[in-house]
Amino acid sequence: MFYDVNEDKLKEECGLFGVYSHTKPISFLTYLGLYALQHRGQESAGIAVTNGTVTNVKKALGLVGDVFKNCLPELESQYIATGHVRYSTTGSNLVRNTQPLLVNYSGGQLSLSHNGNLINANELRKELENEGCVFQTSIDSEVIINLIARSRKSTTEEKIIEACQKIKGAFCLVIMTLDKLIAIRDPHGFHPLCLGKIEDDFVVSSESCAFDTVGADFLRDIEPGEMVVIDKDGLKSYKNSLQGTLAKCSFEYVYFARPDSNLDGQNVYEARMNLGATLFKETNIKADIVISVPDSGTPAAIGYSKASGIPYVEGLLKNRYIGRTFIQPDQKNREASVHLKLNVVKSLVKDKSIIMVDDSIVRGTTSARLINMLRAAGAKEVHMCISSPPVLFSCYYGIDINQGKELIATVKTKEEIRQFIGANSLNYISLEGLKSSIENTKTCTLCAACFDGRYPTETPCEKNNKFIFEADKK
Amino acid sequence: MFYDVNEDKLKEECGLFGVYSHTKPISFLTYLGLYALQHRGQESAGIAVTNGTVTNVKKALGLVGDVFKNCLPELESQYIATGHVRYSTTGSNLVRNTQPLLVNYSGGQLSLSHNGNLINANELRKELENEGCVFQTSIDSEVIINLIARSRKSTTEEKIIEACQKIKGAFCLVIMTLDKLIAIRDPHGFHPLCLGKIEDDFVVSSESCAFDTVGADFLRDIEPGEMVVIDKDGLKSYKNSLQGTLAKCSFEYVYFARPDSNLDGQNVYEARMNLGATLFKETNIKADIVISVPDSGTPAAIGYSKASGIPYVEGLLKNRYIGRTFIQPDQKNREASVHLKLNVVKSLVKDKSIIMVDDSIVRGTTSARLINMLRAAGAKEVHMCISSPPVLFSCYYGIDINQGKELIATVKTKEEIRQFIGANSLNYISLEGLKSSIENTKTCTLCAACFDGRYPTETPCEKNNKFIFEADKK
Amino acid sequence: MFYDVNEDKLKEECGLFGVYSHTKPISFLTYLGLYALQHRGQESAGIAVTNGTVTNVKKALGLVGDVFKNCLPELESQYIATGHVRYSTTGSNLVRNTQPLLVNYSGGQLSLSHNGNLINANELRKELENEGCVFQTSIDSEVIINLIARSRKSTTEEKIIEACQKIKGAFCLVIMTLDKLIAIRDPHGFHPLCLGKIEDDFVVSSESCAFDTVGADFLRDIEPGEMVVIDKDGLKSYKNSLQGTLAKCSFEYVYFARPDSNLDGQNVYEARMNLGATLFKETNIKADIVISVPDSGTPAAIGYSKASGIPYVEGLLKNRYIGRTFIQPDQKNREASVHLKLNVVKSLVKDKSIIMVDDSIVRGTTSARLINMLRAAGAKEVHMCISSPPVLFSCYYGIDINQGKELIATVKTKEEIRQFIGANSLNYISLEGLKSSIENTKTCTLCAACFDGRYPTETPCEKNNKFIFEADKK
Amino acid sequence: MFYDVNEDKLKEECGLFGVYSHTKPISFLTYLGLYALQHRGQESAGIAVTNGTVTNVKKALGLVGDVFKNCLPELESQYIATGHVRYSTTGSNLVRNTQPLLVNYSGGQLSLSHNGNLINANELRKELENEGCVFQTSIDSEVIINLIARSRKSTTEEKIIEACQKIKGAFCLVIMTLDKLIAIRDPHGFHPLCLGKIEDDFVVSSESCAFDTVGADFLRDIEPGEMVVIDKDGLKSYKNSLQGTLAKCSFEYVYFARPDSNLDGQNVYEARMNLGATLFKETNIKADIVISVPDSGTPAAIGYSKASGIPYVEGLLKNRYIGRTFIQPDQKNREASVHLKLNVVKSLVKDKSIIMVDDSIVRGTTSARLINMLRAAGAKEVHMCISSPPVLFSCYYGIDINQGKELIATVKTKEEIRQFIGANSLNYISLEGLKSSIENTKTCTLCAACFDGRYPTETPCEKNNKFIFEADKK
Repeated sequence: MFYDVNEDKLKEECGLFGVYSHTKPISFLTYLGLYALQHRGQESAGIAVTNGTVTNVKKALGLVGDVFKNCLPELESQYIATGHVRYSTTGSNLVRNTQPLLVNYSGGQLSLSHNGNLINANELRKELENEGCVFQTSIDSEVIINLIARSRKSTTEEKIIEACQKIKGAFCLVIMTLDKLIAIRDPHGFHPLCLGKIEDDFVVSSESCAFDTVGADFLRDIEPGEMVVIDKDGLKSYKNSLQGTLAKCSFEYVYFARPDSNLDGQNVYEARMNLGATLFKETNIKADIVISVPDSGTPAAIGYSKASGIPYVEGLLKNRYIGRTFIQPDQKNREASVHLKLNVVKSLVKDKSIIMVDDSIVRGTTSARLINMLRAAGAKEVHMCISSPPVLFSCYYGIDINQGKELIATVKTKEEIRQFIGANSLNYISLEGLKSSIENTKTCTLCAACFDGRYPTETPCEKNNKFIFEADKK
Repeated sequence: MFYDVNEDKLKEECGLFGVYSHTKPISFLTYLGLYALQHRGQESAGIAVTNGTVTNVKKALGLVGDVFKNCLPELESQYIATGHVRYSTTGSNLVRNTQPLLVNYSGGQLSLSHNGNLINANELRKELENEGCVFQTSIDSEVIINLIARSRKSTTEEKIIEACQKIKGAFCLVIMTLDKLIAIRDPHGFHPLCLGKIEDDFVVSSESCAFDTVGADFLRDIEPGEMVVIDKDGLKSYKNSLQGTLAKCSFEYVYFARPDSNLDGQNVYEARMNLGATLFKETNIKADIVISVPDSGTPAAIGYSKASGIPYVEGLLKNRYIGRTFIQPDQKNREASVHLKLNVVKSLVKDKSIIMVDDSIVRGTTSARLINMLRAAGAKEVHMCISSPPVLFSCYYGIDINQGKELIATVKTKEEIRQFIGANSLNYISLEGLKSSIENTKTCTLCAACFDGRYPTETPCEKNNKFIFEADKK
Repeated sequence: MFYDVNEDKLKEECGLFGVYSHTKPISFLTYLGLYALQHRGQESAGIAVTNGTVTNVKKALGLVGDVFKNCLPELESQYIATGHVRYSTTGSNLVRNTQPLLVNYSGGQLSLSHNGNLINANELRKELENEGCVFQTSIDSEVIINLIARSRKSTTEEKIIEACQKIKGAFCLVIMTLDKLIAIRDPHGFHPLCLGKIEDDFVVSSESCAFDTVGADFLRDIEPGEMVVIDKDGLKSYKNSLQGTLAKCSFEYVYFARPDSNLDGQNVYEARMNLGATLFKETNIKADIVISVPDSGTPAAIGYSKASGIPYVEGLLKNRYIGRTFIQPDQKNREASVHLKLNVVKSLVKDKSIIMVDDSIVRGTTSARLINMLRAAGAKEVHMCISSPPVLFSCYYGIDINQGKELIATVKTKEEIRQFIGANSLNYISLEGLKSSIENTKTCTLCAACFDGRYPTETPCEKNNKFIFEADKK
Repeated sequence: MFYDVNEDKLKEECGLFGVYSHTKPISFLTYLGLYALQHRGQESAGIAVTNGTVTNVKKALGLVGDVFKNCLPELESQYIATGHVRYSTTGSNLVRNTQPLLVNYSGGQLSLSHNGNLINANELRKELENEGCVFQTSIDSEVIINLIARSRKSTTEEKIIEACQKIKGAFCLVIMTLDKLIAIRDPHGFHPLCLGKIEDDFVVSSESCAFDTVGADFLRDIEPGEMVVIDKDGLKSYKNSLQGTLAKCSFEYVYFARPDSNLDGQNVYEARMNLGATLFKETNIKADIVISVPDSGTPAAIGYSKASGIPYVEGLLKNRYIGRTFIQPDQKNREASVHLKLNVVKSLVKDKSIIMVDDSIVRGTTSARLINMLRAAGAKEVHMCISSPPVLFSCYYGIDINQGKELIATVKTKEEIRQFIGANSLNYISLEGLKSSIENTKTCTLCAACFDGRYPTETPCEKNNKFIFEADKK
């Protein structure tokens, strides 16, 4: 793909889904749930099911639709299923790194799916290797599983809690044993995890949007530091074993989560409209029209339009047919094909002053191209409004930010960026504006480390915390 | 695919593209052009290229991205290319019915691509068979080619004109010989066809949006009844040979054409915003918010919002990852998966009175589902506003309308439809409103036969003008 | 494929199969029949079926197993089926050149499959084009079909006979109309065609081996110049309309036909054993062992062994797992991989004098490699014995022989070839020996033009009778 | 595949290949080596390469040609490669059970490939689980790797030897670390493993035939109980650490190994010819012709022919085009398609008394079908001669024999089998005859447990030693 709007976006790590039901088509529900969570990871997908005796897992590189093109994993009398979609922030993008990770250990069989990044995975891995452990993958999940297997505690629940007390960083886990579905959210609450019900049966999901897709009702968020265990006796909650400061990822609200999800009580679409409204209040720029960089910039653009009274129109349109197969063009033809994925509706933008709203700027190349296209179509002025502050720092909790030259804000001043993208003005929302738009409470519980560098946990000693296991080649 | 918003839409026939250039990568430009025209036909795609001596064609069932996944047709020193995307309104969806159709005849080689439906294809075919012709496909294009080959005129241009004088109905043709690129638009101008330029080289396309994609400039529309011939001597235009009443398809403006195209001088996005504005003026319904059925209802919804001052929000969101591979669900799970492709943003619609704008209602099933979802999410009222009049009559010119029970408006009254879809009110734009929104001229040149039954040509004697050639099985 | 024993073989054109039955699974029988005839053509495969009203055809490039991997063409109440496998001696290897070729004409529908080459196809094609015909393929079959369609005769049978009186060269045809299965063999009898029965139903096939595969009994050969028509009234034979000298292709016996087939009363395996025995009688070479170049040289080797009393062993073994997918090796590794497809059993050949029997030498490269391998394994002497005379002339009747440097015997003397392949002696069977081994009759009816240049018909005026329709690229 | 001659054969476990070279294309050589060893396992294939820093592995279900269709694993400056083909006798046929198995452990990276079955794998696995190990596969190899990783010895060599002292049963191992290529053969020598050289570089392989394919010279067999270590200092051999009785698998000679391989000094083709000769000496049956069940029965048939003077002919011919894709026929058509894969050359067998030689009888169904076909073709008598004794006992060392009704010899007497297959006589070679044909030494070192039940090691306590890890579904 020679030109991809999404290329210029930060990447989220993973999406989790689980269901416990003796009567529902649980493989199919998990498949639907993963479809709803596909935006959280497009590199691999997997589903594991158990009937209490054996576990069947099917996982591969690719989108949910591709991985399960021919069939879903199924077992006679199956009643617990768990699924995972992944973008690889740790571990290479290899088949063996796909999840759920299924193992046999002294306690029977166990499948584990993980969303987030540990900050002490490498130290733990080395300790375990020194004690004779072997590792077949380069994902944090295998470290967690080995900690569980080596725990001397007597119950599965205690083993898992003991393991979770050793790991540090961001982790939402969905674990399936032969008779239990277990969901844990780290005490900081970096990433979302919630609980739902279909009739009398429980489901867990990274985001509430998956509940709509499978016809489930949202019950509540799983609390930071909470472990929820679903088995034949119903649902049990374990709290207070894991402690930490609240630090919910701001970028889930800005870009990652689906707008129709509610995270910890806040609807994402509304949060984004608030960001747009705040952006107008802070910048107070007037123009003829508000447009968005579709699709992620649209809610903030509509929020800006509503707050300012400036009409919102679709000045940029996406081609809905551009798929994953695209012949690589000759060098000389690259430029000609810029308009393939996004096109300007010329008559809407001609002779207009324009406010263009996007959620973030990573490398700035897409912004530059789009502004160029708008000007070629006759736009009079283009004011770029960004519904998040400049991204300046690495994330250790599951977002793929490589500090350095890829982040334009770390190497250029705001004025230099404005010039680079060719805008008449460049406007970021303030950090305070961001926080107040997402949360109306006085005590802010957001992690904004990528904006201000204030990490809510200790940080890894090594600069590069990607575990170097092997070549990334396939 | 068990649930597809687009299933409940009328289908357009075809998209055409052609380029003549000694210096440009013409296969790749045609490939890009077809990507831009993909919305006009998703069943098959084909590209033919010539270098003046031989012709190479590659065509298959599938989307552009799939058909040309591995390679494009290429020839040493090629300089004319033509491409086609197709939805089968005549002829079965079979490999042999794909276009461009390439033949050898006494005049050399000739490739032909056709958009539209002839009304006298069957009569002509029978006449030709009686004279000893054999037919290998069931598409109108083969009839046209045989008429050309049997013409006793001396030049290719004259042969083509003679053939076009015999055929009746809707036809935009792009013909490629070993040294010419020829484009013809029927005298009624049912479907669009336009001319562009990349530097000094000519391109033709069904819609102007493809010019943006390939980096070409729009020159002008090809006029109804005009034939344009591009060869080493440049461009020549032939007019006045084909006569007929102007009758431009209304549905191109309502739904088929891409919003960023301009058809005969009118931008489609603006036309749709006008339709929305007119709809407000005619119905004058007030509510808390305006939402659209994405993506095709959005421009009219924004037009309604702008005219009425009622805020537009994205109350319904599309899942961008739903592809063409989807496992068929169990019957009992069908209902649960309604929310897979479109989801309601509950917090935006809860306790709100809503105006929902869509471009048309075909069977009404999608509307009913969506209104049901909105009510389940707490919507107080849902007023359905349609930016076209009720579709009541068959189309003989290239749109796949089967008169009868599939068209809800032919079997139910407006009030019955309102009850069927569960709306608080159901509102169609008037035919006058439609016409005035699209054309500001006094002399209307639109075909509105599917709305009012006034066909601009004679109609086929047989009820079913699909040519029965063979079983549709593949 | 960098090294392929079969690359160094002449190529046959086509295989035909047809069945007429109201009770049998005719698609499946045709599929089996084509599997049995796969050796006659590996480039494309096709099956057409009819139920008397419509015809369904499925055909594509590839082996039978690949083309019909997912499904066979089927129709409700189908009762006639016809199939074709093809190696392209005329026409490029393109999808549109696959057969059966299905057309609609004034007489209804007609599917035609052809084995052999016409010598006047180009002249006929030009005449037809001048009369207004268009051609969509570059195969002779389309010429024949147009002749049939333009015939003014009243019955299908008469039309076909009239067409066959105009064409010259080699043709076995299987034609399917909506109610008849028709088989014709040219008056020279170049290629085989035979008739069988499954219970009360008739089948036709290029070779009798297909009858064994489908459980049919062999009835008789279709005679040179005969047309057989199978319909609801049973079988009718038409003779005497087509006249010509008998000229049965020698190479069918030497290499093309399957050894378990009987052609015009002669079993092919026995004919090849006879060739081996004659070879011994003519050369009288003694050695320790006889080996063959598997698989095609084996029957003659066993015949040589039996006649001479010298033991036959498998000195060369084929790797049965080498498929069609093989990664292209680096240049320097080509030599290392010679042994991938054929390997020497060293302990069998070490210190032995060897007679190696093969059916023919085309370019000589394979022979040279094998002899080199045998010597490396310690063979004392290698005597190359060929069960056909040197191939010196082009074939115009369906075998792909390009006169010129590809045929080693046209550019090197026998002694030079012996040196080139590194044999201790090189021995061809004599032309007389060949004829007497195949036929015990006094009046020889074989075509041996590729050996002696005596063509049984006039020859095409143009040197290259491949019809140049277009580029061979796909 | 509804009818497969090979279905009625015992299955071998695995093939191993390894190469250490700084100058050769080692991935490609390994790929060629696996092609040569494909007969030892057709369910999965894998190749791992290292450059001393990282390891790259590519493995999947399927044949070598399919798994490496698009690319081989490659690394900059790679110099050790190892490959594996597998038929699953332990562990389900699942992606995660493919080999080489690559792990990270305290000693760095290690890839292990295994041929053979352990008899104490389950006990060891349970012990390891109780000590906190997790298992991700169900193959013995993972047990061995964990034993190596937990060894407290200081060098890799010592760790491996310690692990090998704990495991019991059949094991040929090829292990690759970041700087060593290590090959071990169990002290019983059940399965073959040998050492070769390409110029100055070492290769190891299950069978010597792979050396021919890659252009290597055979150096010697790796001795039972020997470990060979290849690294920058050349080759070192470790003997005497592993002790056990010699017990070389007889079936390697009878059926598994490729005829062009030499195992422990004995050429396989010659051994099979000896078996045929012995069979004649023991049975002394006379007839008109000797035929074989191709391809595996051919060497013994030729041996029988040579010893008896009765001519060998190919009475049964294989269709070389039958691939892995075959449409499932209707029930009623199954019988009709018996002749698809093997066909009788009628004129060779008609009115003849026949000796038909095969290597073994498992279920007897194929033999019955073939004899039926021969009789239908007019054979006067059919004497079935088997070049191995009746298979009566399970194998615990890597051959997939399920004791019970699948083995016809365990449930029917010899006379009942003769009647079942419809032969005039049924003749097995004697156990003594088998041994003397393979080995000319007085001290027999063969394992013949599947014939006589005398197991050379203790046997597993559990009847079914397949490790039950999970459902076999994919």
